[in-house]
Amino acid sequence: MFGFFKKGNQKNQNQENFCTETDLATGVGVKVPSFHESVNYMYQKVKEAQLSNVADRFEAMEKVRCKFCKEGVSCQLCSMGPCRITPQTPRGVCGIDAHGIVMRNLLIKANMGLSAYTYHCREAALTLLETAKGNTIYEIKDPSKIDLLADILDVDKSLPLEEKAKKVAEGVLNSLSQNDTSIFVEKLAPESRKEVFRKLGIMPKGPMQELVDSVTRSMTNIDGDYVSLALAALRNGVASAFGSLVPLELIQDALFGTPSPHECQVDFGVLDPDYVNILPNGHEPFVGMALVKLAQDPEIQKMAKEAGAKGIRIVGSIETGQEMMARLECNDVFVGLTSNWISMEYFLSTGAVDAFVMDMNCSLANLKEYADKFKFKLIAVTNIMGIPGSIKLEYKPGKETEIAKEIIRLAIENFKERKNAPKTDVSKFKQKAIVGFSAEAIINALGGSLNPLLEVIKSGDIKGVVALVNCTSLGNGPQDSMTVQIAKELIKRDILVIGAGCGNAGLQKAGLETLEAVDKYAGPKLAGVCKALGIPPVLSFGTCTDTGRIIMTVIAIANALGVDPSQLPVAVTAPEYMEQKAVIDGFSAVAMGLYTHVSPVPPVTGSDKVVKLLTEEVESLTGGKIAVGDDPVQAANGIEEHIMKKREALGI
Amino acid sequence: MFGFFKKGNQKNQNQENFCTETDLATGVGVKVPSFHESVNYMYQKVKEAQLSNVADRFEAMEKVRCKFCKEGVSCQLCSMGPCRITPQTPRGVCGIDAHGIVMRNLLIKANMGLSAYTYHCREAALTLLETAKGNTIYEIKDPSKIDLLADILDVDKSLPLEEKAKKVAEGVLNSLSQNDTSIFVEKLAPESRKEVFRKLGIMPKGPMQELVDSVTRSMTNIDGDYVSLALAALRNGVASAFGSLVPLELIQDALFGTPSPHECQVDFGVLDPDYVNILPNGHEPFVGMALVKLAQDPEIQKMAKEAGAKGIRIVGSIETGQEMMARLECNDVFVGLTSNWISMEYFLSTGAVDAFVMDMNCSLANLKEYADKFKFKLIAVTNIMGIPGSIKLEYKPGKETEIAKEIIRLAIENFKERKNAPKTDVSKFKQKAIVGFSAEAIINALGGSLNPLLEVIKSGDIKGVVALVNCTSLGNGPQDSMTVQIAKELIKRDILVIGAGCGNAGLQKAGLETLEAVDKYAGPKLAGVCKALGIPPVLSFGTCTDTGRIIMTVIAIANALGVDPSQLPVAVTAPEYMEQKAVIDGFSAVAMGLYTHVSPVPPVTGSDKVVKLLTEEVESLTGGKIAVGDDPVQAANGIEEHIMKKREALGI
Repeated sequence: MFGFFKKGNQKNQNQENFCTETDLATGVGVKVPSFHESVNYMYQKVKEAQLSNVADRFEAMEKVRCKFCKEGVSCQLCSMGPCRITPQTPRGVCGIDAHGIVMRNLLIKANMGLSAYTYHCREAALTLLETAKGNTIYEIKDPSKIDLLADILDVDKSLPLEEKAKKVAEGVLNSLSQNDTSIFVEKLAPESRKEVFRKLGIMPKGPMQELVDSVTRSMTNIDGDYVSLALAALRNGVASAFGSLVPLELIQDALFGTPSPHECQVDFGVLDPDYVNILPNGHEPFVGMALVKLAQDPEIQKMAKEAGAKGIRIVGSIETGQEMMARLECNDVFVGLTSNWISMEYFLSTGAVDAFVMDMNCSLANLKEYADKFKFKLIAVTNIMGIPGSIKLEYKPGKETEIAKEIIRLAIENFKERKNAPKTDVSKFKQKAIVGFSAEAIINALGGSLNPLLEVIKSGDIKGVVALVNCTSLGNGPQDSMTVQIAKELIKRDILVIGAGCGNAGLQKAGLETLEAVDKYAGPKLAGVCKALGIPPVLSFGTCTDTGRIIMTVIAIANALGVDPSQLPVAVTAPEYMEQKAVIDGFSAVAMGLYTHVSPVPPVTGSDKVVKLLTEEVESLTGGKIAVGDDPVQAANGIEEHIMKKREALGI
Repeated sequence: MFGFFKKGNQKNQNQENFCTETDLATGVGVKVPSFHESVNYMYQKVKEAQLSNVADRFEAMEKVRCKFCKEGVSCQLCSMGPCRITPQTPRGVCGIDAHGIVMRNLLIKANMGLSAYTYHCREAALTLLETAKGNTIYEIKDPSKIDLLADILDVDKSLPLEEKAKKVAEGVLNSLSQNDTSIFVEKLAPESRKEVFRKLGIMPKGPMQELVDSVTRSMTNIDGDYVSLALAALRNGVASAFGSLVPLELIQDALFGTPSPHECQVDFGVLDPDYVNILPNGHEPFVGMALVKLAQDPEIQKMAKEAGAKGIRIVGSIETGQEMMARLECNDVFVGLTSNWISMEYFLSTGAVDAFVMDMNCSLANLKEYADKFKFKLIAVTNIMGIPGSIKLEYKPGKETEIAKEIIRLAIENFKERKNAPKTDVSKFKQKAIVGFSAEAIINALGGSLNPLLEVIKSGDIKGVVALVNCTSLGNGPQDSMTVQIAKELIKRDILVIGAGCGNAGLQKAGLETLEAVDKYAGPKLAGVCKALGIPPVLSFGTCTDTGRIIMTVIAIANALGVDPSQLPVAVTAPEYMEQKAVIDGFSAVAMGLYTHVSPVPPVTGSDKVVKLLTEEVESLTGGKIAVGDDPVQAANGIEEHIMKKREALGI
């Protein structure tokens, strides 16, 4: 691991060094926390204001990190501990060895990822249920997704839409706590994969049942075997992708529409301080979508104007913003996306925000200081979100209008107070991006069938496809620098990249999701394909929550070719994994037989056996494996090599 | 915290020092790992054989423990970490402060406890379901418990038993994933408690839904507020006690009979090497009960005799053994209980064991070395148990006979190999104990009503009642020494003690659950009551799993007196908490308004705010609180003071 600000680090010779054009114009050797100029610019302002911020906290923490925690060989579970593995203490007090501790620590993280996606799925299903009953502001925008779910859940498709949607919602809710094989895995996984799952004993039940098993397994004195712990993580991965993510995404498409390509604006410049700005942040778009609906009302706009603003705007933030942007036209009410997780303190200190509306995850715990200084309201809209200093307005389907109205009221009120808050002009930081490439949109772009894609893959015009599903981290260099560089490396090699997660915002801000990027960055063959289809070389697929639909796309391609997903010239990269959803996504991908690059190196190096299992041996079990490495060129080399090997095996 | 072997530690002047009468007869200053002579005796043998064992591992670990982990201020969740709180790094990289990290780490443990009890409850309900369908070897031994569940679940009590049991089992399974207020809390919690729960927002849904919420909440970037994290732990505590433990215990009573008092044998001497000895170990009695049923068959005994053994015996181990012993007559087939968790390696090295049958939790990860040396079979009977070197025979209701037969076959075969294994005579370590004091049994002992108990409490002959629910730990001194001493301190002060969990085995082995203990240890008033009723001063209530029924007993007493549980002269002590079930039990007790002593000090000292919340402020919210302290006299003082305060408030 290497310090994030440092230039020319030996371990990472191929990492670019990033300097802003403004305060940091001197260039070489300057420490910057981000690939993005907007973040580096605001970082200086935050630093001048002496505010605690993620980059400075990371740098300070570098000096006190625990080697044992880094390597995964520390355990704090019981009163016989805390334990750490050293030459003098090769086992914890309970008798568990380094391999067991390391893999159990990783499983504990995977459990959290599974839980979070299941939580989100349950909330989506409850929202659909109340919508079907006519109790919400939402409507069923894409009935075809209800039909898809009806097919899976054996619901009669000839029923009236509302009744069908109600049965589908109930079916999804029941499937979450199913105590036999998950119906979503049974119906959606290819037969070749199900064979693998059965053989390994990783055919999952409903996600909640798997969660109970797996959290229990992670306790003291239950599973001390790194192999069975790893298999549990893989089973969770299957449960998560098929059992939680797929129904969740289908429901969100049904409720808010299936994404289709359109141009939008990203980066801090989407914030205009003259407007009342409400930023829905997190992963669940429910309250955000209600806000957009209400903000379109001229009466509401009038209220904002009466308070002295030019109007009221909903500005996407992080994954909630990404979910919304993929589905909404960008206009004067919904203006686009600020950025991703690491950017939070930096865009919140522009002085342009009135309400920061936090759903499920990815809000920093220390925002009160910012809210006080820059005068905005911190509002938590789920029960589980606990940010000190926040107002709680708990979302329940059917309450979204009431909550959204209260948020709007608070934001407009806030606008008056905000006048005296310090402000920084960030209008120049604006980048356009083409967003909304769902699987359906890709097929539409291809003229209604996967065949053109299969043809260009077969011909080698596209060597392969890589899903970049990701967070954003300082753990392996400046924010989004690894993400952007690996994407550039891949498209240069005629490999199409699909972006999802916080990293997707990094790609958007870096200008990779534009038509201009084709000539600038894509290899000649990929460029030809992009031009023919009118698409960027990096396709914006959505959020980390879209992992399930990425897997379904991979399955569709595999089915079309009559092969198993593990045989395809495709791969996954998480070049800046940060939290526990990324961990479960990694296991989902490996269980599906996919080569999965992960950086920074997860805390597993304390066990050579776990490292070997996850990066080598598992390939003989699922066909997939983890590849690590913090160097973008080397990581791209590994991915390309894998893709070429798969092409060769397929004889293409 | 202090080293466990040391004599005369200043911090703990009142801790007794324990020496064995044999090899360690020199006495003063000798280091011993346990209160129990049997353990100390076998510890020497294990040490001579140079085997890794829990006591030596604990001692070695003392030298390398991490101060930050001890205090709870270390976080390893995300790739921006690992973080630890220091003066230079007052917040984690994500912005969470020490208070948030400490309480989140504790919540992560509470989640595991909730999960484990929910897992056990689900398995019990599935076992009842298959039994009701006639698919298992079990029968419904106590139909009154089915009726109790039917009352709670609104099942028609006039249905035939099997049909009623089936509906009850289904009702319990559904209740686990209930997405509205748990029916068990709604029906069983006193109105005064429900008011508290509602006011604090800790009225729980079904335990699995709470688990999803709480594991998600424990992720990076969701809840950074120690207060809302603590409330989540309390909500989990309510969900666990009412939603998981109560149905689980009612079902186990229904299937295996409600415990009633009888005498049994405990300690290592229950192992006779001339028999085929099968030790069911863990917490779930399903396979153990099937083994006892089969072992009663003369044909099976004959098979064992043909192999050269005197017969075949099932010997209870840890909590599975405790569950069985509470319900089974002790005879030549089921002979009693070896001991509790810390004793494991020591009784497994007697050379008298043929099969160690591990269900859910509390089996050490390093037993293969022992199995190889002392020639016994390690058999895991749940999917989640992963002990390297173990044979897997997964229990599913309906498969118990097949599994038990296979275990018996393996054990008899093993007996022949075991002949050449090293052996130690432990026949002298034998202690009788009266076990099986369920709530019903207590009422029976009182002549059919709670009134006599209420009268002696009112009169002051019994000052109060303390539930000692516990694990066993070296974290605060020799195994079970704190447990035994605090129990002695309490009964000396005329406080009745109810024992449950691994600590209960410690009390049994120490001779406190006998009639002889009355004169030896009880205060004069308590002694009078014990003699009048013919009961020991410490009542064996069962396992850690019995926390729910202890709470139900407290509720029954409170209801009989027309007060809230928090007003009673009762308390809880966990003098040697070890793992995550104890953590959730602690939160259950505090949520119920009970004074709850815990030792060793949990890893919370890194946050003064969390310490203050849990040990002081929470009392104004729930009426309960945590009290810490590793000195048995001081801990008993605190408990007595609390009891006297409550007596005074009640005017008794």
